Amino acid sequence: MSTVIKNGTVVTADLSYRADVLVDGGVIVEIGQGLSGDTELDATGCYVMPGGIDPHTHLEMPFMGTYSTDDFESGTRAALSGGTTMVVDFALPAPGQGLHDALGMWHNKSTRANCDYSYHMAVTWWGEQVFNEMASVIEKEGITTFKHFMAYKGALMVNDDEMYASFQRLAELGGIAMVHAENGDVVAELSAKLLAQGNVGPEAHAYSRPSQVEGEATNRAIMIADMAGVPLYVVHTSCEEAHEAIRRAKQNGKRVWGEPLIQHLTLDESEYFNQDWDHAARRVMSPPFRNKQHQDSLWAGLQSGSLSVVATDHCAFTTDQKRFGVGDFTKIPNGTGGLEDRMPMLWTHGVNTGRLTPNEFVAVTSTNIAKILNCYPKKGAILVGADADIVVWDPEKEKTITAARQQSAIDYNVFEGKHVKGLPRFTLTRGHVAVHDGEIRTEEGHGKFVRREANNPVNKALSSWKELTSPRPVERTGIPATGV
Amino acid sequence: MSTVIKNGTVVTADLSYRADVLVDGGVIVEIGQGLSGDTELDATGCYVMPGGIDPHTHLEMPFMGTYSTDDFESGTRAALSGGTTMVVDFALPAPGQGLHDALGMWHNKSTRANCDYSYHMAVTWWGEQVFNEMASVIEKEGITTFKHFMAYKGALMVNDDEMYASFQRLAELGGIAMVHAENGDVVAELSAKLLAQGNVGPEAHAYSRPSQVEGEATNRAIMIADMAGVPLYVVHTSCEEAHEAIRRAKQNGKRVWGEPLIQHLTLDESEYFNQDWDHAARRVMSPPFRNKQHQDSLWAGLQSGSLSVVATDHCAFTTDQKRFGVGDFTKIPNGTGGLEDRMPMLWTHGVNTGRLTPNEFVAVTSTNIAKILNCYPKKGAILVGADADIVVWDPEKEKTITAARQQSAIDYNVFEGKHVKGLPRFTLTRGHVAVHDGEIRTEEGHGKFVRREANNPVNKALSSWKELTSPRPVERTGIPATGV
Amino acid sequence: MSTVIKNGTVVTADLSYRADVLVDGGVIVEIGQGLSGDTELDATGCYVMPGGIDPHTHLEMPFMGTYSTDDFESGTRAALSGGTTMVVDFALPAPGQGLHDALGMWHNKSTRANCDYSYHMAVTWWGEQVFNEMASVIEKEGITTFKHFMAYKGALMVNDDEMYASFQRLAELGGIAMVHAENGDVVAELSAKLLAQGNVGPEAHAYSRPSQVEGEATNRAIMIADMAGVPLYVVHTSCEEAHEAIRRAKQNGKRVWGEPLIQHLTLDESEYFNQDWDHAARRVMSPPFRNKQHQDSLWAGLQSGSLSVVATDHCAFTTDQKRFGVGDFTKIPNGTGGLEDRMPMLWTHGVNTGRLTPNEFVAVTSTNIAKILNCYPKKGAILVGADADIVVWDPEKEKTITAARQQSAIDYNVFEGKHVKGLPRFTLTRGHVAVHDGEIRTEEGHGKFVRREANNPVNKALSSWKELTSPRPVERTGIPATGV
Amino acid sequence: MSTVIKNGTVVTADLSYRADVLVDGGVIVEIGQGLSGDTELDATGCYVMPGGIDPHTHLEMPFMGTYSTDDFESGTRAALSGGTTMVVDFALPAPGQGLHDALGMWHNKSTRANCDYSYHMAVTWWGEQVFNEMASVIEKEGITTFKHFMAYKGALMVNDDEMYASFQRLAELGGIAMVHAENGDVVAELSAKLLAQGNVGPEAHAYSRPSQVEGEATNRAIMIADMAGVPLYVVHTSCEEAHEAIRRAKQNGKRVWGEPLIQHLTLDESEYFNQDWDHAARRVMSPPFRNKQHQDSLWAGLQSGSLSVVATDHCAFTTDQKRFGVGDFTKIPNGTGGLEDRMPMLWTHGVNTGRLTPNEFVAVTSTNIAKILNCYPKKGAILVGADADIVVWDPEKEKTITAARQQSAIDYNVFEGKHVKGLPRFTLTRGHVAVHDGEIRTEEGHGKFVRREANNPVNKALSSWKELTSPRPVERTGIPATGV
Ligand SMILES: [Zn+2]
Ligand SMILES: [Zn+2]
Ligand SMILES: [Zn+2]
Ligand SMILES: [Zn+2]
Ligand SMILES: [Zn+2]
Ligand SMILES: [Zn+2]
Ligand SMILES: [Zn+2]
Ligand SMILES: [Zn+2]
Repeated sequence: MSTVIKNGTVVTADLSYRADVLVDGGVIVEIGQGLSGDTELDATGCYVMPGGIDPHTHLEMPFMGTYSTDDFESGTRAALSGGTTMVVDFALPAPGQGLHDALGMWHNKSTRANCDYSYHMAVTWWGEQVFNEMASVIEKEGITTFKHFMAYKGALMVNDDEMYASFQRLAELGGIAMVHAENGDVVAELSAKLLAQGNVGPEAHAYSRPSQVEGEATNRAIMIADMAGVPLYVVHTSCEEAHEAIRRAKQNGKRVWGEPLIQHLTLDESEYFNQDWDHAARRVMSPPFRNKQHQDSLWAGLQSGSLSVVATDHCAFTTDQKRFGVGDFTKIPNGTGGLEDRMPMLWTHGVNTGRLTPNEFVAVTSTNIAKILNCYPKKGAILVGADADIVVWDPEKEKTITAARQQSAIDYNVFEGKHVKGLPRFTLTRGHVAVHDGEIRTEEGHGKFVRREANNPVNKALSSWKELTSPRPVERTGIPATGV
Repeated sequence: MSTVIKNGTVVTADLSYRADVLVDGGVIVEIGQGLSGDTELDATGCYVMPGGIDPHTHLEMPFMGTYSTDDFESGTRAALSGGTTMVVDFALPAPGQGLHDALGMWHNKSTRANCDYSYHMAVTWWGEQVFNEMASVIEKEGITTFKHFMAYKGALMVNDDEMYASFQRLAELGGIAMVHAENGDVVAELSAKLLAQGNVGPEAHAYSRPSQVEGEATNRAIMIADMAGVPLYVVHTSCEEAHEAIRRAKQNGKRVWGEPLIQHLTLDESEYFNQDWDHAARRVMSPPFRNKQHQDSLWAGLQSGSLSVVATDHCAFTTDQKRFGVGDFTKIPNGTGGLEDRMPMLWTHGVNTGRLTPNEFVAVTSTNIAKILNCYPKKGAILVGADADIVVWDPEKEKTITAARQQSAIDYNVFEGKHVKGLPRFTLTRGHVAVHDGEIRTEEGHGKFVRREANNPVNKALSSWKELTSPRPVERTGIPATGV
Repeated sequence: MSTVIKNGTVVTADLSYRADVLVDGGVIVEIGQGLSGDTELDATGCYVMPGGIDPHTHLEMPFMGTYSTDDFESGTRAALSGGTTMVVDFALPAPGQGLHDALGMWHNKSTRANCDYSYHMAVTWWGEQVFNEMASVIEKEGITTFKHFMAYKGALMVNDDEMYASFQRLAELGGIAMVHAENGDVVAELSAKLLAQGNVGPEAHAYSRPSQVEGEATNRAIMIADMAGVPLYVVHTSCEEAHEAIRRAKQNGKRVWGEPLIQHLTLDESEYFNQDWDHAARRVMSPPFRNKQHQDSLWAGLQSGSLSVVATDHCAFTTDQKRFGVGDFTKIPNGTGGLEDRMPMLWTHGVNTGRLTPNEFVAVTSTNIAKILNCYPKKGAILVGADADIVVWDPEKEKTITAARQQSAIDYNVFEGKHVKGLPRFTLTRGHVAVHDGEIRTEEGHGKFVRREANNPVNKALSSWKELTSPRPVERTGIPATGV
Repeated sequence: MSTVIKNGTVVTADLSYRADVLVDGGVIVEIGQGLSGDTELDATGCYVMPGGIDPHTHLEMPFMGTYSTDDFESGTRAALSGGTTMVVDFALPAPGQGLHDALGMWHNKSTRANCDYSYHMAVTWWGEQVFNEMASVIEKEGITTFKHFMAYKGALMVNDDEMYASFQRLAELGGIAMVHAENGDVVAELSAKLLAQGNVGPEAHAYSRPSQVEGEATNRAIMIADMAGVPLYVVHTSCEEAHEAIRRAKQNGKRVWGEPLIQHLTLDESEYFNQDWDHAARRVMSPPFRNKQHQDSLWAGLQSGSLSVVATDHCAFTTDQKRFGVGDFTKIPNGTGGLEDRMPMLWTHGVNTGRLTPNEFVAVTSTNIAKILNCYPKKGAILVGADADIVVWDPEKEKTITAARQQSAIDYNVFEGKHVKGLPRFTLTRGHVAVHDGEIRTEEGHGKFVRREANNPVNKALSSWKELTSPRPVERTGIPATGV
């Protein structure tokens, strides 16, 4: 049963051209003029693009005895609805828990996924078991990216020496280091001080995590990665300070990628000053929304290539869950949704304004991360042989975002009321048409885990350079000698 | 008569994979496993890459009643020998000469070319004729890139108002502005002062064009391009000051590309202090070689993407021609060779050290410029349908560069004695095997002119943004009014 | 007839301490405890500071057949009223006019000055006469600072080669180069384009001179000054781009000073969008007001020392004069007032907020410029032997600024309605009490011209460094030789 | 018994002028022409400058059961010999030891000092006792500056939360935070790795503390100080990365000072590659010497004001002590001398080259730190009433530095063989002529402790700004409410 996408313009990270795309057996089998198939999807007036990849989600994430409300079913349904065909979640070991053990729990959750997915492994504690399992997680599980939390002191946070040890291990194994970059010590101190001063509302969440605190941690992670000789991926880069640290690193030839979120690109800190507690609390996430100058910085980063990937950090809590934090902002669960809206919001504010070309849109929503994750061109490409993860994008289709008509399981949407122009006409996940002209036809459990290999070309190049420039002992005889 | 490249690893700007490549009728017709053809080229152990594109050459360039010594025949022969399959030369109108008229002269020279080529048009004076012909040069001739000299006062140099006018015209027409960025006024003043002080040797050429002078002009061109709303390509970016200006522009979202030369990446200013006048004079070019810190800056730019393209500015003069400047450095013809050595030198110092991945090597020698010039994927790609401009790169092949065995028509080589590892086993120009395992089989006149279209995606995006943010008049009634 | 200032706290750029100050014969004769004099001024609760120096005024400046409305009488009266005891005006030669000739005209205007003054000389054209007279202006007239306009094309503007020639001359003579930094070519082009588009209102004045245009010219002037080996003073630094260029220069050890105006520190571009044409036109000056981010940059520059001096560019035109430009913004006379309000506005927004210490306030309003101009400690100091140019500053005194009660001769005030806290109780000009607790007691013609010497320590140090690092010829024999 | 310094040129941070200086009772009593006194010192051809202040010494510092070899006697003798008249040492509490207790130990050591001195207090652990004693140390002991070690893990190092707590305490108390900025975790990891690789020589000390590690810590300390609202003083800023962090902070209006050492300004990392183990080991200090680019950065910082103070970190160990580290670089005692050579070396390489003016020399060797420490103008000034800590500087006096003729008690000198021009003719410590034309006439025990007050103007301004911009809660009613 083949499917042909007819009369569209293929748009990849590289180029745009008129062609039909023929899909069979879940993969792209032919690209060309005048193709035909069993089923025909009319892409007239549309762009045929690689489906989006969201490299940063937290579906059904354990939290205070409950879970983030979007699970792999509703979460991937929301993703597909917005043109995203792959998500990458984070497997989070509890303190002392083994990596494989944690992975097992995540594999259990993802069985209901509607689209393909992968995981990043989190390093939440350090010890010989973690050291050893890192190798097998890479080799046996095909997971090459390891996240480190520099915040959430007393919970997920690791210290500098643990980060160095883990980063060095990754350098040996050909993996990639990731960081949530905020100075956890300072966040904890500021939070305590704010609470003591009676600053208990959701706006104090933003006060407790100023951009300087993120910039500092980003800068620190970059230094540690450089010393360890490992490529670094900085998640949710939200501010100029962090972006500046990344730019400065890159201009010294370091291998660092930054990931702004669609929320930070389009929403600002004034949301926290809303008179409505619920409104503000629903926007609580870490890092918090920033001001317009930070937004401008992030957009310029996407334009210039100093930032590489747009993600969501989708971690959806209901209003009821958010209300755990009434009277104490530190108890508001951190996280917002975005999976369904990432691509339309980025298209509207990026491509329609002229900040990004359509090709750059594909790069930052799909192709760049596929390369970093080393699953390109299986993912992130419109090429023969690639998985048929495809979004047929209608640049004229419009809507106003509202929780009332969203796929996410929560009761609000941080983009409520935003008008978008540019939406999927069809979304295909490995050939299955999951979104058909506004109709959701997802298939629970269709999604498969995507294995990835270590040692991508950047790892290899960096290792060569580090070997070439490694410290050499001075050859001396008769130590000590005489002289000045 | 088809040709198949067997058993190699295809390496593009995007990815690397094992595949055979079948060529017929001058284009790539199939990529896959187990292909066969009339002729077979063994690529075992080799990388099959898009042929190099050198976007900056001056073949048979008129100079003081004579010409630069490499013409389109010897120049493109040298290019192919080193794995470069397309060159872009500069058509330089004389003062008052029309653009089409100048182009006619260049078309005459290029009839003997061994590989494909295109031109940039230079804007060397300003007037209504130039204004008008810019449109027809783009539309009829397929030339979309226009160079402006900010140096060579009294000859090629244009002033800021002329640059602004030309840049604005290009913004309307969807073209791209290029600049040779050095402050011509200051260069002229410094040169006069140096001569007056008795600083007449070739080292004074370097003294007369310090990096600050290049940085300033680069910064100025960027501002003018931003005001006019046109993308800017800065040729021969040789120093940190210019690179910094480009980085700063990019971090504000401006559309600017920088082009380091292989010479500036690998040779330094100490060459000018050589006791041998000939040695120093042979290295005289503008901008001159810089020191190690500038080199590090350029390499980091290639790694981070703040610089986009590696070129040569190939403009080869013999020792006899160089000696016009004995006793007066300002009379030494400016220019060095490099066409044959660009790719081996960059591979050796870039890929072999780990500074660049093989994919990044392809990007900066071929794919990036093909996209900028808007001739991708006809050029710069290993894709079905692309021109069969291919280099089969043997990473184990070594040689020591020497003028004694070069294709260039001049009597020396600025890379003399440099050892390189990584050389072409075969070079194909539109399917014709011009280099066959060390043997040169170029075909004079085989090369064809490459037309290009205006309005690439970056132009379109920039125009949208500039329109969106253009100045709007304040609506007032009863002008003037009363108040404070 | 001696005067003693009793019971105040002396505040200088260096330190604060309790002391009385005794004045006689126009100079400070004693500083200490328990002093007495013929007249006593009660400074209880006040700071006794060096009188302000405004290094940038245009009093009775010729313009379109008329003059800027504040002359040396009303201008210096306004100055004293606000605590400023010295102004430095610009002598502007007409095209072809000699420097001494122009100076004569300015000396004629200043006879009515109420406080001391000096001049900067403008270099508005270039030729042998200018070259020669620069020496005699410095030696005979005691004027060491020479201004160059990079804007006002067709009128005051000089080109890069003229700037280089003049800067080099100043390096020889031990003078200081000054620039009005905006790219005049681009301003002219943008202005023409805006007018053609029907953008004729005062807001188009701001559109025609974006911050990039100022940043570019600042960067260019810095490069030219560096090549010529002369210290550079950039007047009216209004934006981050210009400030960034200055910072970048300083971090390379270059000798550059930046001068923000009180207007740019406290007013923003939204003034130009006022519905009232008069309101907007009265704020027209070059550079125009900028946005909040630029303001933050300027304040940080004062805090960090990357900017050195706060001035006004006082050039006051009446509403009637402003209305020359109805229907064509390019005809609105450029300039605003500020002499009376500079110090109270800076104290209110700088010291009262904690951005500046009181000592830093003295530095940027008086001492720094006195050192740069080489008239310290005659001016800018509270030291025995210094001129008794003193302001007794009452930090509790408040007012709301209004044209209704100002000294300036014009009919409005750009700071109208601003509340200030911190005002002079007394202002002394060479011992004469010109402001006495709110009462103006200026004495027309009391002001004297302040001669200055060339070769201040920075000039000398820079010359040594430039000599040490100047280009040296390579010694060669048998030119040309043989080799590679 | 008065002393008059005749016929010299007084050079201060502000200005230079011809005057005699009369000293009596240990203070300056008159400055003027034609003064006379009981004793006359001929300053013909000399500069009469404030004596140097070295704010960073470790005299008789405990180490591995022994002490750094220069104690307060030999150390201050060396200081005076080189024109330095005050030193500031660090009181280092052992783990768990109270601040006052540690101070008592330091007061015992300093009884033999030949010149005045003060202390910084180190915060080497954190607890309620430290919190409480910080107040009494400031108020009762007159010590306002508190040092924090970010390196020396397991010994002196404090963590980020401890630093934040201490910095916040200092903000309340009006003190100043200081940091030794290197990432101690990473240094420890790198050291262990180097030893494991057989990199055991002194050059590995440099490898273990790359400039990135210092830059990171500097950046982190700046962020923490900003969050806590306290001014920050960064000791021994040795590299561009740290300097960049300081510049970046300052350009955002933060209150940070940087202190390069004379060693880092004039010596480079090649010293560690010396074939002679002793030669290399004698230069082991933290941070280690850097390369030429870092030196250039530091010099430019002094020129531009982004760096404020030149110190020595004088901590002198004999060759025998250094040899504790044969076979294990981590056991080489860290520290070099410099007290005697700081001023001649800085004059020679700074003033004689034209990088610094004589006034800037005074600023960075004396006046700036006196202001920061809040003991200006008692120290750091040539003013009536100031302590007669004076150096009469002969700019024509020359010598070659050698251990054979030094005051320091150790057996070598890291500046051995350097030729200097510019040396003290006389050095006065509170009126006592301790150096008389080459003859050392120090008086053991003459030195007194210098008390200092908290709340200098920068502290006050910063507190105002932080109060003005502190987080404010949003006023809400009916929490939570309804909405989006
Ligand atoms: Zn996170
Ligand atoms: Zn997350
Ligand atoms: Zn050129
Ligand atoms: Zn060229
Ligand atoms: Zn001006
Ligand atoms: Zn002006
Ligand atoms: Zn230290
Ligand atoms: Zn120390």
